[in-house]
Amino acid sequence: MVTPSLTQFTITPGVIDLSWGMPDPTLLPVEQLRAAANRVFDTHGPAALAYGNPQGPPPLIEFITRRLAQTDARTATPAEVLVTSGASQGLDLAADLILEPGDTALVDVPTYHLALHILRDHPINLVQVASDADGILLDELDRVVTELRTKNERPRLLYTIPTFRNPTGSSLPADRRQALVAFAAANDLVIVEDDTYRELSYDSPAPPSLWALDTAGTVIRLGSFAKSVAPGLRVGYITATPQHIDRLATGGLLDSGGGATHFSALVLAEYAASGDYAAQVDRFKDAYRTRRDTLLAALDAHMPPTTTWTRPAGGYFVWVDLPPDTDVKALTDAARSHNLGFVPAAAFYVDPATSPPALRLAFSMYSPADLTEATSRLGAALLTPTDA
Amino acid sequence: MVTPSLTQFTITPGVIDLSWGMPDPTLLPVEQLRAAANRVFDTHGPAALAYGNPQGPPPLIEFITRRLAQTDARTATPAEVLVTSGASQGLDLAADLILEPGDTALVDVPTYHLALHILRDHPINLVQVASDADGILLDELDRVVTELRTKNERPRLLYTIPTFRNPTGSSLPADRRQALVAFAAANDLVIVEDDTYRELSYDSPAPPSLWALDTAGTVIRLGSFAKSVAPGLRVGYITATPQHIDRLATGGLLDSGGGATHFSALVLAEYAASGDYAAQVDRFKDAYRTRRDTLLAALDAHMPPTTTWTRPAGGYFVWVDLPPDTDVKALTDAARSHNLGFVPAAAFYVDPATSPPALRLAFSMYSPADLTEATSRLGAALLTPTDA
Repeated sequence: MVTPSLTQFTITPGVIDLSWGMPDPTLLPVEQLRAAANRVFDTHGPAALAYGNPQGPPPLIEFITRRLAQTDARTATPAEVLVTSGASQGLDLAADLILEPGDTALVDVPTYHLALHILRDHPINLVQVASDADGILLDELDRVVTELRTKNERPRLLYTIPTFRNPTGSSLPADRRQALVAFAAANDLVIVEDDTYRELSYDSPAPPSLWALDTAGTVIRLGSFAKSVAPGLRVGYITATPQHIDRLATGGLLDSGGGATHFSALVLAEYAASGDYAAQVDRFKDAYRTRRDTLLAALDAHMPPTTTWTRPAGGYFVWVDLPPDTDVKALTDAARSHNLGFVPAAAFYVDPATSPPALRLAFSMYSPADLTEATSRLGAALLTPTDA
Repeated sequence: MVTPSLTQFTITPGVIDLSWGMPDPTLLPVEQLRAAANRVFDTHGPAALAYGNPQGPPPLIEFITRRLAQTDARTATPAEVLVTSGASQGLDLAADLILEPGDTALVDVPTYHLALHILRDHPINLVQVASDADGILLDELDRVVTELRTKNERPRLLYTIPTFRNPTGSSLPADRRQALVAFAAANDLVIVEDDTYRELSYDSPAPPSLWALDTAGTVIRLGSFAKSVAPGLRVGYITATPQHIDRLATGGLLDSGGGATHFSALVLAEYAASGDYAAQVDRFKDAYRTRRDTLLAALDAHMPPTTTWTRPAGGYFVWVDLPPDTDVKALTDAARSHNLGFVPAAAFYVDPATSPPALRLAFSMYSPADLTEATSRLGAALLTPTDA
């Protein structure tokens, strides 16, 4: 059931809940967005409140093309961009576009659990592909696709998060990016690349997107402003071939309602035009880099030597691998009794029974002091998982 | 292809295009919405910009329940309301909820052509049911449902616009509303009631919605603020059973992205709380009532005696029936040569070949003077349809 809260997250006093993969609300640029909203009314008047261009407002599309020229290895032409109501709608639209009922969608696990929820709402089969610490395993992908085709199933779409992956924080190496894009092109597989975390690179620029490497038109990339500006505006985008963009922009939903998020998209465009965007991304990056470093240092200090964890170069998440005999359910209960929350590994698998003993910690929402305290609680829970 | 315009509509100088079923931009409450947006930043700060409650912001849900108590024969409890990104998304979500691949959706024709486009994007069969000047014919509905069941097809959903119907402006009489709801309950048919035009009643209060008459939980009503405040905000709502609302609010799209239109919905809630809402509805109604009256008077003056037209008590549209031998395609071309646009009847039918010689005129976007001029051009085009 839905709570009466204004926001999706809810706070329980005393609890540190590292399950929320969301920006810290105290870092959101409230006053700059207020100023941008006022400029939208000044500049556009009623045009900001009428049905919007189904592809999205041209000023925001222009900004997206300019920003990608700085943050990715390839920019987009305006005809290659569609503004969406968040990356979630982007995935929903891409799945509707590519998948017929009964088709199979692939996901490399572990993957974003709520993307699994969106895909499961479609009348399709969902099949997982194994990955290692760096990302999807190409030979596993090949094996799964071949096996499905032998059974006359149609694997048509692969959803993947190659950059600062949710839930592990890892990024797919360059050679496997090239190989993945080549495999998709050769196998009539559309890659839906969730590129939500591209802007949040803490150590060096984010790697080129799969979309940037693609010359066959087989990648649909989902971008988002939820992590670089503010999620409540519900503004994301897709980059894809002009043919895919045209089919999306002329579909029934946008034909009827016009631009998916017209007013908010204009607020974002005004915000971006002011030059505030890059500075805000730097503020997020500075805060989250410190939180990541604090969390990693606390894990070094508090975790037993039998546990290991990822060291993400971007994004929101650290993935903790636990000893093989760990009862993750009991650990989750024990952590709860210590007022600590996280998401157990099973949530990120199509087949939870195949999930390893592991958990995801999100470091974006809490202060360094809270992250250190949370890690101490996790250490305590690990010592007494059967007390719960 | 998509145009580089900020808005969905485009204006060609000299052309009067009565095909746009949209509010007049000059009537949109720009300054009041600016003030509301500023109060959202004041009141809610970062909570307005975080991921929102998937069901929608509680203040807007409360307003919707209070307003329905004034404009409909039944109010809703908060558990019966979901905030959507416009009625278009409402229809898309309802279709996803109710229809399995291969199911049949029914529509009474003529009906909103872009709803047909949304439904056609789903992997279903679409079947039309005949109506008369007042709306859907119950015996035709019974016949179609029986015939489909005989063929082992599954009619599961009826999309209908019983109040100030797009494209005719007519409303279904009370006895047929009762009979339609009873038929749906007895036949396991979910009615998706498009109630977009409820607020725009020019002569007397709008009739009770099908949702208000339903005691079996078989109606999902789509509401909208596109016609009563501003479409570019992308805010609508659904009223349905708590079970349907819960399933919609906990689906993948809203689970991942939170509230469908969080920030804009809060702007609308602040706007409504200020008391501006009812006054704005009255401004729209006063303007559109005058336009309707002007258009009807002009039709009286300019149409040949062989044509007839509806006299809508609300909404945006007048439907003009033409003599049986009219070549509507030739008339449309002739009108274009007179710088006049409208939508020919065929667009509003699942099977265009069954459409009568008729056309839809939208009177919402243009001044009374333009509407009189447009009618004069239509009269001229009717005299010379084969000149084009």
